[in-house]
Amino acid sequence: MKTYLDCYPCFVHQALHAARGAHLDEEQQIAVVRNTLALLQTVPADLTPPEIGSRVHMLVRQFVGEVDCYRQEKQRSTQEALEMYPALKQLVAQSQDPFDTAVRLSIAGNIIDLAMKDEHDDLWATVDRVLSQPYAVDDLPALRKGLAAADWVLFLADNAGETVFDRVLVENLPLRVVYAVKGTPIVNDATLEDAIDAGLDGCAQLISNGSGAIGTVLNLASPEFRDFFERAPLIISKGQGNYETLSEAGERVFCLLQAKCPVIGRDIGVPVGSIVVRRSTTPA
Amino acid sequence: MKTYLDCYPCFVHQALHAARGAHLDEEQQIAVVRNTLALLQTVPADLTPPEIGSRVHMLVRQFVGEVDCYRQEKQRSTQEALEMYPALKQLVAQSQDPFDTAVRLSIAGNIIDLAMKDEHDDLWATVDRVLSQPYAVDDLPALRKGLAAADWVLFLADNAGETVFDRVLVENLPLRVVYAVKGTPIVNDATLEDAIDAGLDGCAQLISNGSGAIGTVLNLASPEFRDFFERAPLIISKGQGNYETLSEAGERVFCLLQAKCPVIGRDIGVPVGSIVVRRSTTPA
Repeated sequence: MKTYLDCYPCFVHQALHAARGAHLDEEQQIAVVRNTLALLQTVPADLTPPEIGSRVHMLVRQFVGEVDCYRQEKQRSTQEALEMYPALKQLVAQSQDPFDTAVRLSIAGNIIDLAMKDEHDDLWATVDRVLSQPYAVDDLPALRKGLAAADWVLFLADNAGETVFDRVLVENLPLRVVYAVKGTPIVNDATLEDAIDAGLDGCAQLISNGSGAIGTVLNLASPEFRDFFERAPLIISKGQGNYETLSEAGERVFCLLQAKCPVIGRDIGVPVGSIVVRRSTTPA
Repeated sequence: MKTYLDCYPCFVHQALHAARGAHLDEEQQIAVVRNTLALLQTVPADLTPPEIGSRVHMLVRQFVGEVDCYRQEKQRSTQEALEMYPALKQLVAQSQDPFDTAVRLSIAGNIIDLAMKDEHDDLWATVDRVLSQPYAVDDLPALRKGLAAADWVLFLADNAGETVFDRVLVENLPLRVVYAVKGTPIVNDATLEDAIDAGLDGCAQLISNGSGAIGTVLNLASPEFRDFFERAPLIISKGQGNYETLSEAGERVFCLLQAKCPVIGRDIGVPVGSIVVRRSTTPA
């Protein structure tokens, strides 16, 4: 997905939000905002939003240092989701279409996103909504078919906590799953530590993408991850950041997400609040 | 009111919104956004938000030229409000406290604000809400007292259309009213033309503040306006822009507004959606 002009005010907002989240003092917050304004002036306009957003977060990190500021929030999100896990498993077990239910739950978990706001919406309310809501883009039949033909799948994680919802889907998949997380902490995106906390190590091969960028920016990822990405017969890609970086990555990629941002909604062609299973296109 | 860091993303948003409102093409929109980023890096941080916002709008105007891009929208807002005018007059006439009702209607009209969004909320719904909603800051008793002691009042207008709601209040005031509008068009703020369209010339002395800045920036206003401002025994100041520039302008000033922006709400200490009659303080 291209970067829209509407993303620019949002980058400034994200920089400030991250600076406050890291408890920088007022003077440092001012410096973060000013440096972000300078960065945005010179950043190439043809990058995707996560590529620019990652540079913004790297800038914030220069002030914060190499710490995982969201570690506590991530642990709390994971814990909250783990408490729901037995009930989520039961929902799948009792479903007439367990795969559809597991996909929906994985999408429901995508509401956990601390990049833009401090709190996510109530998780059970989101689950109820997503279980009954029609898909605004429904490439689920193609995903089913793709999974039936594949011998393994690469699963690109998004946020910590959401990982528990992904686990419910992963445990429902009848094939080998390689679950890829971020190489270094970025906002509340899941790292290896977070995936293990969520119990993913029991049902998937965990790998790092070797990068601390938002989404999946292939030229910032490790050669090992790129090798997995190139060889994967099918890729399940979770969340907005992965959609923004992989929406034109070809027909092996299926993006599962909630459209939470109006710009992304417009890019997909759906209203905010929509749930989406979208097969990526190949760039023209 | 000081400029908060949260205002910076909003300035970028406003620049883009104004560029689109003026039908600039994509390339010009990009230039507006980049120039705004540059401007914000160097703008003194101790200016009020309308002072910075006005510079942003001046920048946009360099691309647009000297046209009143919001003229049509302003005429439409005025027309819509004029259609409500007889019913608004009746509400005041039938009220047990006509002054309170007229103040509330003037505040209700403050929902008309195209600076941040393309459409305002439904006007009758807003009137109903504002007529029954408690004031979140209630300096109405002091305003009553001030008006009883004054021989004239300076009334600082905000948006076109809102002017019709102001007219209902002006017609209820038992003293001479000088109604001040913007000297040059800025967003949908009322100019002399708009005030005349709203029928204010029949009940008030109309003056221009000689400036195209948002709110009331005294050092950008004309000497004639500043003279009115200095001599006025009482000043009624409408809307967010005037609050932002005059919140510490002393006890002669009463700000009537709806808190529509979270930063302004926080500055006043009230939730978004609040209605406010607030006597200005004197800077410490």
